[in-house]
Amino acid sequence: MSNPDFAAATIAEVAPLIQNRQLSTVELTRWHLDRISTLNPQLNAFISVLGDEASAQARVAEQEIASGNYRGPLHGIPIAIKDIIAIKGVPMTCGSKILARKSEHDATVITRLRAAGAILLGTLHLHEFAWGGTSINPHHGTARNPWNPDCLPGGSSGGSAVAVASSMAMAALGTDTGGSVRIPSALCGLTGLKPTYGRVSRSGVFPLCDSLDHVGPLARSARDAALMIGAIAGADPRDSATARLPVPEYTKSLGASIKGIRAGFLRGFFAEDILDEIATAVAGAAEHLRELGAQIEHVTLPLMKHMPAASIAIMTAESYAVHRRMIRERLTDYGADVRLRVLMGAMVSAEQYLRAQRFRRLLCEQTAEAMKRFDVLIAPTTAITATPIDQEVVRVGNKELVVAASLSRLTRPANMTGLPAISIPCGFSSAGLPIGLQIIGRPFDEAMVLQVADAYQRATEWHRRRPAL
Amino acid sequence: MSNPDFAAATIAEVAPLIQNRQLSTVELTRWHLDRISTLNPQLNAFISVLGDEASAQARVAEQEIASGNYRGPLHGIPIAIKDIIAIKGVPMTCGSKILARKSEHDATVITRLRAAGAILLGTLHLHEFAWGGTSINPHHGTARNPWNPDCLPGGSSGGSAVAVASSMAMAALGTDTGGSVRIPSALCGLTGLKPTYGRVSRSGVFPLCDSLDHVGPLARSARDAALMIGAIAGADPRDSATARLPVPEYTKSLGASIKGIRAGFLRGFFAEDILDEIATAVAGAAEHLRELGAQIEHVTLPLMKHMPAASIAIMTAESYAVHRRMIRERLTDYGADVRLRVLMGAMVSAEQYLRAQRFRRLLCEQTAEAMKRFDVLIAPTTAITATPIDQEVVRVGNKELVVAASLSRLTRPANMTGLPAISIPCGFSSAGLPIGLQIIGRPFDEAMVLQVADAYQRATEWHRRRPAL
Repeated sequence: MSNPDFAAATIAEVAPLIQNRQLSTVELTRWHLDRISTLNPQLNAFISVLGDEASAQARVAEQEIASGNYRGPLHGIPIAIKDIIAIKGVPMTCGSKILARKSEHDATVITRLRAAGAILLGTLHLHEFAWGGTSINPHHGTARNPWNPDCLPGGSSGGSAVAVASSMAMAALGTDTGGSVRIPSALCGLTGLKPTYGRVSRSGVFPLCDSLDHVGPLARSARDAALMIGAIAGADPRDSATARLPVPEYTKSLGASIKGIRAGFLRGFFAEDILDEIATAVAGAAEHLRELGAQIEHVTLPLMKHMPAASIAIMTAESYAVHRRMIRERLTDYGADVRLRVLMGAMVSAEQYLRAQRFRRLLCEQTAEAMKRFDVLIAPTTAITATPIDQEVVRVGNKELVVAASLSRLTRPANMTGLPAISIPCGFSSAGLPIGLQIIGRPFDEAMVLQVADAYQRATEWHRRRPAL
Repeated sequence: MSNPDFAAATIAEVAPLIQNRQLSTVELTRWHLDRISTLNPQLNAFISVLGDEASAQARVAEQEIASGNYRGPLHGIPIAIKDIIAIKGVPMTCGSKILARKSEHDATVITRLRAAGAILLGTLHLHEFAWGGTSINPHHGTARNPWNPDCLPGGSSGGSAVAVASSMAMAALGTDTGGSVRIPSALCGLTGLKPTYGRVSRSGVFPLCDSLDHVGPLARSARDAALMIGAIAGADPRDSATARLPVPEYTKSLGASIKGIRAGFLRGFFAEDILDEIATAVAGAAEHLRELGAQIEHVTLPLMKHMPAASIAIMTAESYAVHRRMIRERLTDYGADVRLRVLMGAMVSAEQYLRAQRFRRLLCEQTAEAMKRFDVLIAPTTAITATPIDQEVVRVGNKELVVAASLSRLTRPANMTGLPAISIPCGFSSAGLPIGLQIIGRPFDEAMVLQVADAYQRATEWHRRRPAL
């Protein structure tokens, strides 16, 4: 494999070459660091680049592999980390101008990636404190969508998506509280997985909302996402929300047929107020899954229409609990949008919060009831494609949709229910912007979600398209 | 066994006589109904007496037993139920003047008691909506302590304690959100068990605070409490908080030696601002346990001093969430004290509530850490003995203690941590009022709590004393 192919390659394709010593991890890392030097000034994906550390890690990996100690498919793979996940000795900004302290410990997910032999290229741009879906950021500039740098990449893990989509990293970690892994994956043409709540430790991750926060990978294929989640998943005594359940070998479920698998195509809330081009692409994907042997049936979740109000009460209240002291001391150092979102939480009463959590339990019950008949649910990831930076509304038919709400409305449900959900590319708009298909699974059944996504990707090419850079 | 002995008998003593048909359940039930007719006008334990239904149940039980279908030790035993637990067809007041509707279904615990063959004598008095520890009630009058009818019985399950202590019922069900089973058990000389959070279903029980509510028995011995909890415990799909854990046969752990069992004697928070007579009696009980072979060691839980503030935030907020609509419509129909407690919850912010729950997790961790060295913890149940009705403060040394707070301060910890806790009699004050010893166990280890309580009761006579009536 010659160097230019790195821009399109997946981890699964590169790993055997590393294992067989046909490819140097030092060379692979240098290629990515060069790519960052070239593209990052324009695309603004990285907040800090760990050039020396990554090169040193790559040399160690190369030596280990040369001496027969190959650790597995992430060994020597250059990845990057959303700047809200602690890396020992590296400043963590959380996308703010308030925080910049060097982390004293690795987050649990970093410890696990290091154990798998991954190379850490640097820390990635995000919406300030992960509290927004655009990655427009007044402190660190705005991350740019590689498919059209005038457009936003989605967020909050915007830098994660930009880095992977523009081949500055082979995969990245993001966090997802209302869609922050899946939204930028959809807008940048990537495969992004939010695992089940409790599957991946959040220890060492700066919290947004404890009861909704997840960590997950952004990658170029479902297979690469499976490799990443396999490395970071599993119980952690430092995050009491993690479940003491065995972690399946996720790659084992890949490559299998999806014949007979039952998929519920979400209608109602998930079919309203979305771009026609998205509706068409997602319907096409559903038809494609049917051709692959899946049984597709329409399904609605009537309670979902009340989800946004409950979601906002929980998110604002929990985030205010995190920020209470800091926002008192540094009010004007917050960006205007994030300041407003955090302060809204001060006005939520305990009773409103408890009512929202009670509603959430009902929503979980209704969804679990519906999922008795289905292995997965499918829906669009976002209601709109990437919009020009600073455009606040999108016209759909005779309605004006607010960009921020339209980005996260369809991803929040899987945060409220805690269900695993992946976004995979399923088409492009007439303007050449990616469209995401969301596949939602049963609790702790990431394997099924990955199996369906992989089957679709083996039959289609959408996930292989790369932006012209 | 002749009739007069019923006043002192335990279920464990009576059950074999019923099984062997030496004792008629019809006669036993009639004796208790007569006792209610005689004593209830003075003591005010029952809100409604189910005379005809109980008599009919007793006849059915007698026929079943006569035909060889003995169900077990609760078969034919007359018990009574706190009027906040639904009994099909019986009005449920919750101690209020607002509610009085006949319940459409049995609560899960009632279904289970019926399956065990218990006879339901009626519904029992309580603090309005279970929101207080005195059982002073402006709507239904005040339940009276059988040891001194000028004194309060404790609450909120005051009627439950009065009925069992005065032999109007052989055992009773209560609920315990901040000590409501254990406080009246202590003040009336009974054995009251709050099981582990998640051990007993609350389905069909009117909520006070979902995250703190428990159902538990009040009885005349640890053995009787074991029989009651064994009948009602276990997972229930109608209460999602119940744990899917097997229920041990609790009576099996009884009768065993406690030699070598490690008991932590709680100091600090649990030793401050309590009556000297209580401190002396509890220290005597600790010494007695040591003589029985237990290893006693002092232990403190430093975080406990912040527990009252966190507890009140959670209780008021969650209770306001329950009462929000009703208190808007019926404000003046609430008693003054309960109205204030509920309305306080309207002023708790989500952030304060979340902070209290976060503190609660830390408290649970500190307690779990301490309990690695101990099988049980011991402490007084209450800081004071029963006080004259309407007395609001008690002088201890040169301090004035508020009655309401002193009743519940030492029981709330086990609600906040969810740990199983029993109160058993361990002495009497110079005024002849009972004193309670609290034994707290590890999660879901009610068996150990009962074993220690039973060992103490086999060696002492405190629990056998009955008030002169």
